[in-house]
Amino acid sequence: MVRTYSLDSKKVASAALEWLSARGVQLEEIAELVMQGQSEYYPNLSVEQCLEAVKRVLSKREVQNALLLGIQIDILTEQGKLMPPLQEMLVHDEKLFGCDEILALSIVNVYGSIGFTNFGFFDKTKPGVLDRLNNKESGEIHTFLDDLVGAVAASACSYIAHRKQAEAEATMGV
Amino acid sequence: MVRTYSLDSKKVASAALEWLSARGVQLEEIAELVMQGQSEYYPNLSVEQCLEAVKRVLSKREVQNALLLGIQIDILTEQGKLMPPLQEMLVHDEKLFGCDEILALSIVNVYGSIGFTNFGFFDKTKPGVLDRLNNKESGEIHTFLDDLVGAVAASACSYIAHRKQAEAEATMGV
Amino acid sequence: MVRTYSLDSKKVASAALEWLSARGVQLEEIAELVMQGQSEYYPNLSVEQCLEAVKRVLSKREVQNALLLGIQIDILTEQGKLMPPLQEMLVHDEKLFGCDEILALSIVNVYGSIGFTNFGFFDKTKPGVLDRLNNKESGEIHTFLDDLVGAVAASACSYIAHRKQAEAEATMGV
Amino acid sequence: MVRTYSLDSKKVASAALEWLSARGVQLEEIAELVMQGQSEYYPNLSVEQCLEAVKRVLSKREVQNALLLGIQIDILTEQGKLMPPLQEMLVHDEKLFGCDEILALSIVNVYGSIGFTNFGFFDKTKPGVLDRLNNKESGEIHTFLDDLVGAVAASACSYIAHRKQAEAEATMGV
Repeated sequence: MVRTYSLDSKKVASAALEWLSARGVQLEEIAELVMQGQSEYYPNLSVEQCLEAVKRVLSKREVQNALLLGIQIDILTEQGKLMPPLQEMLVHDEKLFGCDEILALSIVNVYGSIGFTNFGFFDKTKPGVLDRLNNKESGEIHTFLDDLVGAVAASACSYIAHRKQAEAEATMGV
Repeated sequence: MVRTYSLDSKKVASAALEWLSARGVQLEEIAELVMQGQSEYYPNLSVEQCLEAVKRVLSKREVQNALLLGIQIDILTEQGKLMPPLQEMLVHDEKLFGCDEILALSIVNVYGSIGFTNFGFFDKTKPGVLDRLNNKESGEIHTFLDDLVGAVAASACSYIAHRKQAEAEATMGV
Repeated sequence: MVRTYSLDSKKVASAALEWLSARGVQLEEIAELVMQGQSEYYPNLSVEQCLEAVKRVLSKREVQNALLLGIQIDILTEQGKLMPPLQEMLVHDEKLFGCDEILALSIVNVYGSIGFTNFGFFDKTKPGVLDRLNNKESGEIHTFLDDLVGAVAASACSYIAHRKQAEAEATMGV
Repeated sequence: MVRTYSLDSKKVASAALEWLSARGVQLEEIAELVMQGQSEYYPNLSVEQCLEAVKRVLSKREVQNALLLGIQIDILTEQGKLMPPLQEMLVHDEKLFGCDEILALSIVNVYGSIGFTNFGFFDKTKPGVLDRLNNKESGEIHTFLDDLVGAVAASACSYIAHRKQAEAEATMGV
């Protein structure tokens, strides 16, 4: 019997969350990056709101696709399954190899251009979870994942900014 | 003895060309797409100029990186080495999975925005080599490669347009 | 008395729709492009669904921003208010000037990468309203608007694709 | 007598440099941003090399186009020539208006994805000339220009990275 293919969006969504967790990334850690990036603009911002924003970003199909692909590449790199010279470039997170940033930007794009600044800032300063992912001494390879997590955090920052504007306008309307 | 890593740009460049050939894509076929896309604007355009443009595009590091990564993913998909649901999405070139287009656009970007139109047109009409790569009955998987080859052709179209403008201005200058 | 600035999202949204209308573009015309682009995949697709998709895309802030800026530039170009050589390049929709495509792509990005193909195809084939906007003999300048309208249509195509998938999965779930 | 239009690339190039200078931006200031961004990686990097990189970036047509358009919009904003609500959003460099970042990213794209990080970092930390351009108390409007200058600097950082790699490989080859 031939099984016909059909996309199962729920499986894609849950796989993205499971893979993220399996690679050691907690949603709360991403929320902390968001808090760090946005609290200066919104003093009343709560960790719960940041976590909610992260979950919203992770509910987007484009974001799930990028996470699945990036984590898969990281795992195969860890297992030494890629052909040279790609294997070597990815093991060493080669600076002149930019496909990881490309994939990350497709996440940032989903919530608009205001995420670019935060993405670049996170990528340069590597706060919190990004520092751990970027640690080359653990034996783990997160060449794609560190950029993707930074992009999810940056997109959540955008989401917060849009949401806070809507709240402010709703209040003024009263 | 520890071997330190250092990027070898020549190896990256030659690997990109070899992998392209190993996956059955001839540079002449890409040049034909360029000819098809640009000959209406430049009646004197020769196949040699198109081939030269394709080679120029392929000499760019960003393009080589995207080709190596995309072809690697295609090969691993063919071998069934990816985890579900990514494996299934890539085998079936899932329409709502857009990371292949994302990677392709990073190629188009290198020669500027005028390549976008040609990329989309090639991707929709699938002329020549793109039709063959997109054939799902061969058993081969080219989920990434068909978009990447279309992007190389679109970038070469941009290169031709810039080059022809330079030639026209040089002639008028005399 | 100093009036402090605060963003009024409703004004931005309504201005985008009004400017579009003032420049002679009907939402129904954009919906027709969507119908043309997607009806082969979804035989039961209705014009109403396409129009609904167009309205959804136009409700996004990023899309409104790009429309306002692009239409403003077109109007100023028509009035001859730009400095040379920018004025000349925009009057003649210079092929090697790609900022109009750049702005259009920021619209396409909002609904993910699957819109790129349709954008390029519309831009190359110029169906319906795009042909009229692109007509250089009317005296009107739509250097930016034709690309932006094509991008709105392409994004609405993406929206339809995502929506139809959700419907299919909901049906199968029953 | 009808004058036919033809693109004059030299005029476009020189206009971009003149407008940059007329808006108070010296190439040496951009070079300083590059020095600041790259000197930690290349201790022997000289200001002359940074200035050379900036000039290279500015020689690209896509970059010139974006500069001309962005500066033109800034000037028209300063003169109050735009329609509301666009005028107000641009005067106040509205955080949720991202077309300036979009245009800037088209510059960053030219030298590949490794520029994104530096662009975001410059945009967040606003060093040197960017702080002056971003000063809202001068009466001048640089809503687009501050992002564009940051993007030129970020692209020049990419150029330096590619160039230094080529030098290192040439040395090892000997």
